Amino acid sequence: VAGIAGKLDLTISRIEAPDAAVAAETQRAFDRKTKPRGSLGRLEELACRVAAIRRHPISGPEPAAVVVVAGDHGIAEERVSAYPQEVTRQMLANFSAGGAAICVLARAVGARLVVVDAGAAGVFEEGSVLDRRLGPGTANATRGPAMTREQAFRALDSGIELAEELAADGVGLIALGDMGIGNTAISSAVTAALMGCDPVAVVGRGTGVDDEGLRIKLAAVRRALQANATDPEDPVGVLAAVGGFELGVLAGLALGAAASGVPVMLDGFVVGAAALLAARIAPASTAAMIASHLSPEPGHAIVLGELGLSPLLDLRMRLGEGSGAALGLQLVNTALLLLRDMSTFDDAGVSDAGA
Amino acid sequence: VAGIAGKLDLTISRIEAPDAAVAAETQRAFDRKTKPRGSLGRLEELACRVAAIRRHPISGPEPAAVVVVAGDHGIAEERVSAYPQEVTRQMLANFSAGGAAICVLARAVGARLVVVDAGAAGVFEEGSVLDRRLGPGTANATRGPAMTREQAFRALDSGIELAEELAADGVGLIALGDMGIGNTAISSAVTAALMGCDPVAVVGRGTGVDDEGLRIKLAAVRRALQANATDPEDPVGVLAAVGGFELGVLAGLALGAAASGVPVMLDGFVVGAAALLAARIAPASTAAMIASHLSPEPGHAIVLGELGLSPLLDLRMRLGEGSGAALGLQLVNTALLLLRDMSTFDDAGVSDAGA
Repeated sequence: VAGIAGKLDLTISRIEAPDAAVAAETQRAFDRKTKPRGSLGRLEELACRVAAIRRHPISGPEPAAVVVVAGDHGIAEERVSAYPQEVTRQMLANFSAGGAAICVLARAVGARLVVVDAGAAGVFEEGSVLDRRLGPGTANATRGPAMTREQAFRALDSGIELAEELAADGVGLIALGDMGIGNTAISSAVTAALMGCDPVAVVGRGTGVDDEGLRIKLAAVRRALQANATDPEDPVGVLAAVGGFELGVLAGLALGAAASGVPVMLDGFVVGAAALLAARIAPASTAAMIASHLSPEPGHAIVLGELGLSPLLDLRMRLGEGSGAALGLQLVNTALLLLRDMSTFDDAGVSDAGA
Repeated sequence: VAGIAGKLDLTISRIEAPDAAVAAETQRAFDRKTKPRGSLGRLEELACRVAAIRRHPISGPEPAAVVVVAGDHGIAEERVSAYPQEVTRQMLANFSAGGAAICVLARAVGARLVVVDAGAAGVFEEGSVLDRRLGPGTANATRGPAMTREQAFRALDSGIELAEELAADGVGLIALGDMGIGNTAISSAVTAALMGCDPVAVVGRGTGVDDEGLRIKLAAVRRALQANATDPEDPVGVLAAVGGFELGVLAGLALGAAASGVPVMLDGFVVGAAALLAARIAPASTAAMIASHLSPEPGHAIVLGELGLSPLLDLRMRLGEGSGAALGLQLVNTALLLLRDMSTFDDAGVSDAGA
């Protein structure tokens, strides 16, 4: 464990602040374009932020990857979801076959889709899914720790390594997505433990439980927090206590991307909870995060507020898989396309205001 | 004039209500897809609305056109804009050369770009701009009517005809955009006249006037409304009184699209004011309108509220040209792509919840 923690520490030490000079240079480039200054609003801010995180001027859309990480959760046996646990494994097959929403969206936005099995229950053999299995789903957190502390470190490490591999391969934008029956319950437990808030503030309907299901889910989250002593100052301990494998890998991806100067596009509540874990492990990592959309899950706005992020979109999407993050990628790359392809006042012979 | 008004009346009579049965059928198709019901949020609603407006099931992304209509305004000589009037003509050249923001965006979203000169000041010869000139800019509305009532009808007609041509050519989605120095001042006058509100509520900084410019602009809008007796029950009269040519053509496009069963993606405040004119001429036309984004111009939220529309995006964009509408098109066609390409629970062998 010491050695693995050492790797995590090394990653944390490599996270640099975004380059404000590159952001200012990017803004000046936008100000030469044929449009009123600042009139592209958040698109201009996005492009400047991406350039600052990349720490070099941007020459056009960045090669993007959507990384969807799947895992199962012992807490599913407490009936916290409207869907049976087998759906996690079935959706891995659907991701491989190209028929899931995120497959359609990744193709539409021109992003590489990377599907990671961090530990789904049952056997799944499929060449196109990366095997980063940490176990056949976590243990039921209502009865004790979801995983060992060593597994938590391995999950983080696995995400860090994957982010580093993607960055080395030229990926300049990473969107995160999740799949795992029961993982909004786990994300609620993680958020409540890290924020010190009552679970009622952060438990929602997830994929669509009814009123009775919501009551059952809230009670299960409470039992998970009672069964495990968690310390908000020990985020790795919180991850080990309630899970899940995919949250650990996603947090590692956020840390590894930040250390590699690659912007991280967040998705909904589950990726948000993983981002909160990353932020507690390395506060500087939030500077590389971009919030794509706001989920109707009540915990998501709380997480984004804590991360200091304002979502780009609010379309009442609650699918996960990185579906909102893919739309966020599209906005970023549209902004970078405008930066690259718009003509300047000089080139186009257009009169600038007061210039 | 009577004959032209007759054509407008014919168009109004052709506007049908969206087909609720097609919307329900589209929702059922989404409910068979491998995702929790309704979890794509507003993307599902958008696809259902588009299908209902088209009045037939949708088989994939619709061929889209972005129509940018330009015009000049006599009120520009009152210094209501941060830019000189010549910029309208210069931007027509920039649209033709492919270097304006909307050119980049239309290419990015795969939409046809149609640029219309409804009456810019000065001479502009360019094959790729449609000549629908109603004059060399409107008259200065602070001193009397911006145009004749006949010109107002001709502007509306011109837009109706263009929408009908595009629909006949297979275009299934029309995004509207505007260009015209001084046209946020004119849109404020139109909105104040139609809503019966004080101009102070609907005059903003447009392309970026400073505090002194804002004061000058508000005073000019007040003078335009004092110089012309307007009646909110006579929207064509309001158009004739304050202008402008592009607002009339844009209102006609909205009416013609609604009559042709083609959804109309609105842009910011100027297109919003034109949509309000269309709504007052034919209230049923609003059912074909989709609000792409919210502009920071204070009048825009008022217009969208009056139209009963909720914007998809809020990115502080204030460029015009159809830039926000192009992003709205992208969301609609992404929704239609999901509808076409996602696998169903049956196809993918995924367990549905309670199904």
